Amino acid sequence: MKPSGSVAYAGGVSTALLTDQYELTMLDAAIGSGRHERPCVFEVFARRLPNGRRYGIVAGTGRLLALIEQFRFGDDELSFLQHNSIVSTTTIDWLANYRFSGTITGYREGEVYFPGSPVLIVEGSFAEAVLLETLALSVLNYDSAVASAAARMVSAAGERPLAEMGSRRTGERSAVASARAAYIAGFSATSNVEAGRSWGVPTMGTAAHSFTLLHDSEEEAFQAQIDAFGPSTTLLVDTFDVEKAVDLAVKVAGPELGAVRIDSGDLAAQVATVRAQLDSLGATNTRITVTNDLDEYAIAALRSAPVDSYGVGTSVVTGSGYPAAGMVYKLVAHQDDAGEWVSVAKKSTAKATVGGHKAALRALDAGIAHTESIYQAAEGRPDVEGRDLIVDLVVNGSADARWLGHDGTLAARNHRAQAVAELPDSAFGLSRGEPVVPTVYR
Amino acid sequence: MKPSGSVAYAGGVSTALLTDQYELTMLDAAIGSGRHERPCVFEVFARRLPNGRRYGIVAGTGRLLALIEQFRFGDDELSFLQHNSIVSTTTIDWLANYRFSGTITGYREGEVYFPGSPVLIVEGSFAEAVLLETLALSVLNYDSAVASAAARMVSAAGERPLAEMGSRRTGERSAVASARAAYIAGFSATSNVEAGRSWGVPTMGTAAHSFTLLHDSEEEAFQAQIDAFGPSTTLLVDTFDVEKAVDLAVKVAGPELGAVRIDSGDLAAQVATVRAQLDSLGATNTRITVTNDLDEYAIAALRSAPVDSYGVGTSVVTGSGYPAAGMVYKLVAHQDDAGEWVSVAKKSTAKATVGGHKAALRALDAGIAHTESIYQAAEGRPDVEGRDLIVDLVVNGSADARWLGHDGTLAARNHRAQAVAELPDSAFGLSRGEPVVPTVYR
Repeated sequence: MKPSGSVAYAGGVSTALLTDQYELTMLDAAIGSGRHERPCVFEVFARRLPNGRRYGIVAGTGRLLALIEQFRFGDDELSFLQHNSIVSTTTIDWLANYRFSGTITGYREGEVYFPGSPVLIVEGSFAEAVLLETLALSVLNYDSAVASAAARMVSAAGERPLAEMGSRRTGERSAVASARAAYIAGFSATSNVEAGRSWGVPTMGTAAHSFTLLHDSEEEAFQAQIDAFGPSTTLLVDTFDVEKAVDLAVKVAGPELGAVRIDSGDLAAQVATVRAQLDSLGATNTRITVTNDLDEYAIAALRSAPVDSYGVGTSVVTGSGYPAAGMVYKLVAHQDDAGEWVSVAKKSTAKATVGGHKAALRALDAGIAHTESIYQAAEGRPDVEGRDLIVDLVVNGSADARWLGHDGTLAARNHRAQAVAELPDSAFGLSRGEPVVPTVYR
Repeated sequence: MKPSGSVAYAGGVSTALLTDQYELTMLDAAIGSGRHERPCVFEVFARRLPNGRRYGIVAGTGRLLALIEQFRFGDDELSFLQHNSIVSTTTIDWLANYRFSGTITGYREGEVYFPGSPVLIVEGSFAEAVLLETLALSVLNYDSAVASAAARMVSAAGERPLAEMGSRRTGERSAVASARAAYIAGFSATSNVEAGRSWGVPTMGTAAHSFTLLHDSEEEAFQAQIDAFGPSTTLLVDTFDVEKAVDLAVKVAGPELGAVRIDSGDLAAQVATVRAQLDSLGATNTRITVTNDLDEYAIAALRSAPVDSYGVGTSVVTGSGYPAAGMVYKLVAHQDDAGEWVSVAKKSTAKATVGGHKAALRALDAGIAHTESIYQAAEGRPDVEGRDLIVDLVVNGSADARWLGHDGTLAARNHRAQAVAELPDSAFGLSRGEPVVPTVYR
């Protein structure tokens, strides 16, 4: 059955052109050489962690599985390829029936990863598997960059909740992915409404400076907000003068005021002053939330200040200096004409890789990780105490429902908490260092 | 007419939830206070350029106008908001009929901008205009970050063409935006196929290392590629040993081989060696393209090497260190109850802004820009030689067709070339400095 138009695969639009053109031209040439049906194994891994990070968090897997289901070529996609002579008519016909029917295994979403960890393993014919390279990397590289940065903020914040508020600092669809990835990494909520709908991430938000400026006075604005949401709302107190605004906020809302938000200035000093002022006004349960260009270092610096919660924007959605996780998608094995598996790898100097279909376990001692152990799957699991890291994600073309949608997102968040709890304490330092667990190839 | 479901506004899916929740709660509270219909002016501007950049390039405008047409609340969007009690039923009813009916003016896409430039000016009721804050910023901040970085690479590359190849290093939809923004900034082509379809960006791509590794030998792989695309194709020569691969490439394709691509190693030295080797084999017209983690500095460093073209990935799609342009969306004026316009601005220390509905011109002397002149629109254009910067983008809810689709993208690319040509030579230094043209508020 040939799909028509470019819409409506698994409820979404086609993702088939979200690819680098070379995947299509490689397919075309491989069909020509007759090699396109060779069974292959591709692997996604990161050569290294961003400069000085101690560990990374895998994110994006659940999104990727849904996008792979929508990776179908309808008439619109095919006619673009044909009209622009990107591939031959033989290949157009082949693509019309494309649907990934292979198997994908890998790390669970929310899992901790290290250099070389085989985060995703794609098994299928060359033709089927090569087409997923760019989509897989776009999703995993962005989402994992955000989750890896977010995890550092979560440990810097300790028990205090973090809200992701960076939608305006990344592409409009990346914003949704980012909200989801930060939630997986331990953030409590997001300002992004679509992330609430699509992925079940708790959403929050009250008012910006424009709301105060719209009204004829700050008092009128505060009263309008209290009228709409009750005194438990969060009032933004830095539009004009923080001290006056805090007085006014408590006057209008009463001492049961939920929270005040501060979005500018020297936060450590400001927060202490506002806390004292709130307490003196009897608003001892009113919380203080801060939102001014925070990153993991600023959050750590506020540890001794009486902050109740943080809103984080730019730094989380841009991976706090490392906006792409640097994962690559490499052919590691294929069958030869005799049906034997051949390990393959690029040999040139700076980017040499380790071939072969691999598996991985995290070796543990008293529940604490000490080695990322990567081995050739065909040689069998080494007899080591530890946790197996590879799970089924897609089996014969069908995505495992455990990893999809709202439930999959929540499962990833819970798994992240467990995986991070296995790391030694040195994982949580913010200064630069080596990966906290060394990778060993067996 | 109430839209149904969440699909199919102007051919796309609803963008209405690509927003921070506070825009909806502000709307809700403003409906409560009766202030939601006050005529307002919001302005998008950047407080500063990224550290040491000399100018920025506005990008994303054409995409944003299309996304605003899809900013409609269907049953799916409304039921999410209702089910989660994000806004009141009164507000749900109001949103069901929402369609932006105001006016948007601003800088043309592809225009040069400086700190304070009023890049986008949104006029409408508070209710209508406040909802667009996050969408406008997501699009403009990401696309302008990419275009601003790309423009530096374009000037560093001189006459040599640049291809954008970074799809795998940014979110899967941001990848499309990125390809488009780089094209507007002067790149020649992209690897991203969807950017070709959606925006008319020329696409390119041949083969990755996996194609060579799939075959039983490098020779078999090269032959397969030549068979499919002819000798004018680009062969990737660094899978095993560059020198042997170059010999083989010319042996298989003949001296009419189109190009070789090098993706690793010390490029300056490597390129010179490969050039000499190709010439000695008679392949004097075979071009050399390089693609290994390039940014504007690496491109400039290769100025004296015999490179014919560059492929740029990570650094362009992540804004070369500055992945978000830092633009903000601020209420600058509203009408009071008497129908008089009131300028408004946040007063607190670090983030004070200039209120009022502004316009801008770029003052020129003999065709070269010397001042970004920003003035209050109501006071009239100053009598200064220069180019007016504000154009109509959306008039009474209808987007100006000149800025949309393939044509709009090409128009933005052409405009960028003209706008950049007005800049003084000091704009093109890569070292850090002040904005090349000072901003003056009149």
